[in-house]
Amino acid sequence: MQDILNDICKTITAEPNKGKVASYIPELACIDPEQFGISVALPDGQVFNAGSAHQLFSIQSISKVFTLTIALGKLGDAIWSRVGREPSGDPFNSIVQLEHEGGKPRNPFINAGAIAVTDAIMMGHKPRETLGEILQFVRFIADDNSIGIDEKVAQSEKLTGDRNASLAHFMAAFGNLKNPVEQVLGTYFHHCSISMSCEQLAQAGLFLVSDGINESTGFRVVSAQRARRINSLMMMCGHYDGSGEFAYRVGLPGKSGVGGGILAIAPGKASIAVWSPGLDSIGNSKLGTQALELLVQKTGWSIFGH
Amino acid sequence: MQDILNDICKTITAEPNKGKVASYIPELACIDPEQFGISVALPDGQVFNAGSAHQLFSIQSISKVFTLTIALGKLGDAIWSRVGREPSGDPFNSIVQLEHEGGKPRNPFINAGAIAVTDAIMMGHKPRETLGEILQFVRFIADDNSIGIDEKVAQSEKLTGDRNASLAHFMAAFGNLKNPVEQVLGTYFHHCSISMSCEQLAQAGLFLVSDGINESTGFRVVSAQRARRINSLMMMCGHYDGSGEFAYRVGLPGKSGVGGGILAIAPGKASIAVWSPGLDSIGNSKLGTQALELLVQKTGWSIFGH
Amino acid sequence: MQDILNDICKTITAEPNKGKVASYIPELACIDPEQFGISVALPDGQVFNAGSAHQLFSIQSISKVFTLTIALGKLGDAIWSRVGREPSGDPFNSIVQLEHEGGKPRNPFINAGAIAVTDAIMMGHKPRETLGEILQFVRFIADDNSIGIDEKVAQSEKLTGDRNASLAHFMAAFGNLKNPVEQVLGTYFHHCSISMSCEQLAQAGLFLVSDGINESTGFRVVSAQRARRINSLMMMCGHYDGSGEFAYRVGLPGKSGVGGGILAIAPGKASIAVWSPGLDSIGNSKLGTQALELLVQKTGWSIFGH
Amino acid sequence: MQDILNDICKTITAEPNKGKVASYIPELACIDPEQFGISVALPDGQVFNAGSAHQLFSIQSISKVFTLTIALGKLGDAIWSRVGREPSGDPFNSIVQLEHEGGKPRNPFINAGAIAVTDAIMMGHKPRETLGEILQFVRFIADDNSIGIDEKVAQSEKLTGDRNASLAHFMAAFGNLKNPVEQVLGTYFHHCSISMSCEQLAQAGLFLVSDGINESTGFRVVSAQRARRINSLMMMCGHYDGSGEFAYRVGLPGKSGVGGGILAIAPGKASIAVWSPGLDSIGNSKLGTQALELLVQKTGWSIFGH
Repeated sequence: MQDILNDICKTITAEPNKGKVASYIPELACIDPEQFGISVALPDGQVFNAGSAHQLFSIQSISKVFTLTIALGKLGDAIWSRVGREPSGDPFNSIVQLEHEGGKPRNPFINAGAIAVTDAIMMGHKPRETLGEILQFVRFIADDNSIGIDEKVAQSEKLTGDRNASLAHFMAAFGNLKNPVEQVLGTYFHHCSISMSCEQLAQAGLFLVSDGINESTGFRVVSAQRARRINSLMMMCGHYDGSGEFAYRVGLPGKSGVGGGILAIAPGKASIAVWSPGLDSIGNSKLGTQALELLVQKTGWSIFGH
Repeated sequence: MQDILNDICKTITAEPNKGKVASYIPELACIDPEQFGISVALPDGQVFNAGSAHQLFSIQSISKVFTLTIALGKLGDAIWSRVGREPSGDPFNSIVQLEHEGGKPRNPFINAGAIAVTDAIMMGHKPRETLGEILQFVRFIADDNSIGIDEKVAQSEKLTGDRNASLAHFMAAFGNLKNPVEQVLGTYFHHCSISMSCEQLAQAGLFLVSDGINESTGFRVVSAQRARRINSLMMMCGHYDGSGEFAYRVGLPGKSGVGGGILAIAPGKASIAVWSPGLDSIGNSKLGTQALELLVQKTGWSIFGH
Repeated sequence: MQDILNDICKTITAEPNKGKVASYIPELACIDPEQFGISVALPDGQVFNAGSAHQLFSIQSISKVFTLTIALGKLGDAIWSRVGREPSGDPFNSIVQLEHEGGKPRNPFINAGAIAVTDAIMMGHKPRETLGEILQFVRFIADDNSIGIDEKVAQSEKLTGDRNASLAHFMAAFGNLKNPVEQVLGTYFHHCSISMSCEQLAQAGLFLVSDGINESTGFRVVSAQRARRINSLMMMCGHYDGSGEFAYRVGLPGKSGVGGGILAIAPGKASIAVWSPGLDSIGNSKLGTQALELLVQKTGWSIFGH
Repeated sequence: MQDILNDICKTITAEPNKGKVASYIPELACIDPEQFGISVALPDGQVFNAGSAHQLFSIQSISKVFTLTIALGKLGDAIWSRVGREPSGDPFNSIVQLEHEGGKPRNPFINAGAIAVTDAIMMGHKPRETLGEILQFVRFIADDNSIGIDEKVAQSEKLTGDRNASLAHFMAAFGNLKNPVEQVLGTYFHHCSISMSCEQLAQAGLFLVSDGINESTGFRVVSAQRARRINSLMMMCGHYDGSGEFAYRVGLPGKSGVGGGILAIAPGKASIAVWSPGLDSIGNSKLGTQALELLVQKTGWSIFGH
């Protein structure tokens, strides 16, 4: 495995076209696109790293997997009255579908859906409390208490967050936000600004590898059925309108973030985190996807084969 | 396995709400909604049946899996210049996305995409020749030369096929059909009218279970990579705007048809065909989906767990 | 003329179905739907009234005619880089078109367009200053210094203005708002909350009757060409996705507001204001439209005949 | 008037940028873009011409005014159950709105709407009979029996008419066509291929100038109310998604055709026909619009002033 990762790292760092770093969040715009990291965490607790696997980066939309997991724990299936579970076929920040479908976002991984999920888990609490809860959960599943929020990134998002504010107010107009819009957005911007390394992220994904149990710590995080369902949502909706492409090329459930990270799950086999800040035109990590494609070719981990 | 299928059959036939039989194709509208069949074909050649597993039914859109496979064989990746591979988020017969995206259908499993694929495999040949080729392929992968086309259903579709004619002419206007519209539609209506039993269908899917090889016959149908990619497309797009729901509930790549059939693939494990003519509001078999959900619960075959 | 208005008033007040009072602005929801007023102002200064023509009501979107006139005065044709001049075919608060056309509203009379126009006339000034300017202009054209803003209505709009906030943030995300969103919305909500009577409103419209000159006061407000162009915009876009219906039935340029008022212009003949709080399904005054239809039938004032 | 037209003719023919001749109908693609004609017909029977006012050209969508008039005569208001009367905000050949609104076109002047109107006036008759009727009507209102159909253009449209075939089949799928699609399209293509000169066209429009009566012949064609309503529809929908622009610049009800002609009505004053084959990006005659703008400036005929 270590050899495989080293190979991938060599191939990826040699790629001339690294994609474009997200420019609409100023704090992310100045990240060096040359960086690359990959971590593979196995159920038995082993972790293999290559490249800048310990470098912290902004997990951005990958946090949506964690907030969805929390929401399912708190509300159960009631969350599905607030958000759907179908691919949207639209960009991450599209508002068209919201108007056509009465303010109910298609799925929890597009921005509108994740804002609705954030609202759902607030349950009348203040942003600070909700963020504390989210952070505690992420630290728990990653088994690492050092994980925190990058306040500079959170502020930077806030300043340029008009598109998300538009989505939030739109849902509020349909009664699909219960807490004040400002507070929901503040909470959303902050949990998107959690900083993690590839290694931490790979470990945080382990509960999705083993039917809800993090086998390295022995803790059950969610039921087997719920773990499988979260994986199915990552598969169908984890890469916005590039989800089909990711399924076709990589063949694993995965969730990307505009910070350049991707968390991918090979059920029964491994939790994988990659990071390369340059994005493709849809907003998914260009070389991160390529690294995962190489990894799956070398390991045969696609869930569509055997 | 036989006990599991018998149990499922008992549960499903006892369900009071069977959904609604497709009404827009007259010949299908008169099918008895009480019928149910299920077949599970294992790579080693064993087949388990329950209910009306030998009853022939119209496979309808399930044929799109076979025409896509043929198109990939003939054109390779060039087919992707004609059709995309993303979930559409729209109903099976929607034309909106076609206008917004210049006549290129989102994926090969919505009607527009399947019509484009049908056009692509015609390559200037007459409908009769193309249909011969499709039928030959289906007979080959199912290892059953008795499979044929129900001409009554084909005629019935033709009479009510204005929506598909609209899609075809729209693509033709953008130069995305090379053969005469009438001939492409005739070919399309006919391959949708192939009649198969659950048992035949399950056997036809075996090459997708074992990385491209039908292990019971020993024939390689497609490469391992291609088999995985076809599975990924079935997962992402096989149930129209109900694909997310199917992934969430069943967790297997699958393709439905308005005849009430579903072909589902459990990679490495089994090819499954179910049939129940009543449809849900999206156009997928209501009890067929439920039967697959039960089967996956009992066997643990979800590709999202281990 | 007085007889005509009395007749219309009698017919309208006898109508059993008055439409539905706008419910989404609480302060407007409690207006008595039984009220009706009509005023006809002639270029020579004569005004004919019937019903509650002196009752103040919230002019709401009719204020968009005045802010557009101010914006044209301040920016000239440069305003058209910020907003289009085509009917939208969509409801007044739709956001779909904004996403498809990069944050540029179709015309100045849908909500998004009017918010952009409000932003344009602020030019860095505070809401209070801009509102002062708008109010001064309305008092000037109506020749009535008693006209003011209903602060309760303005607060009421603010509380329920999520849909407008969504539109504003969406445009801000595309750089099509220059002032802080909160301030633009505050200004917008306030100018929509101007209270006027039918008589005041009819007088305010006189400059559009006589090619830019209010002949009763002798003041030129805008050039002849500009007056005609404002009329053309009222004709094409003044009733949202009911503009075609209004043109068909009434045949005059007009602008409606959800307060139940309509300002209609018969070029060379009269400025007409009607008020009936009940709305049709599109959000235009149901009986107000009917009153104008009757007036045009009796006077032959349609601009489509002679 | 003759001097005005000569001036306009001089200005227009000196314009270097003539727009682009419609390319999608081969027979129209080879028209010389340098040609220009203008005719002004007064109610008293006088006609003023300049340029190639006697040159025949393909009236294309201008024929939709005549078929709508016929349909209103045959069906009365019942036609409005088949087609709406709102601007669409979409291009002439868009299908998106049709899907969103159940196969009912927004208005009779976009292609879909005109096809539905053509179907409505067929009433079970054969294309030849219906065309005879349309031609007879056009000859009657223009008082000129020499008017005919250019069969070459009709054939040319048929060959490239996939977009219109798509619209027609789409409506047929919703039950909004009663006659066979092929026959409706054949009739539609043929009435679009009527050839007229500016002079003939201007005379054909006279009934819309004088509240339904052609005062030069003395014949009443439609009621005053109907004439005004047809004018309102031309105003609101006559130039597709450029209708707002035409209202803003010209200020007259008008209907354009991709052959480069425009028929404009100044109620009570004149019927005007212009022809310049080069089109703008929306599909309306570029210099034709400019000529009308000049004419209205010189005559003050805008319906929005006095």
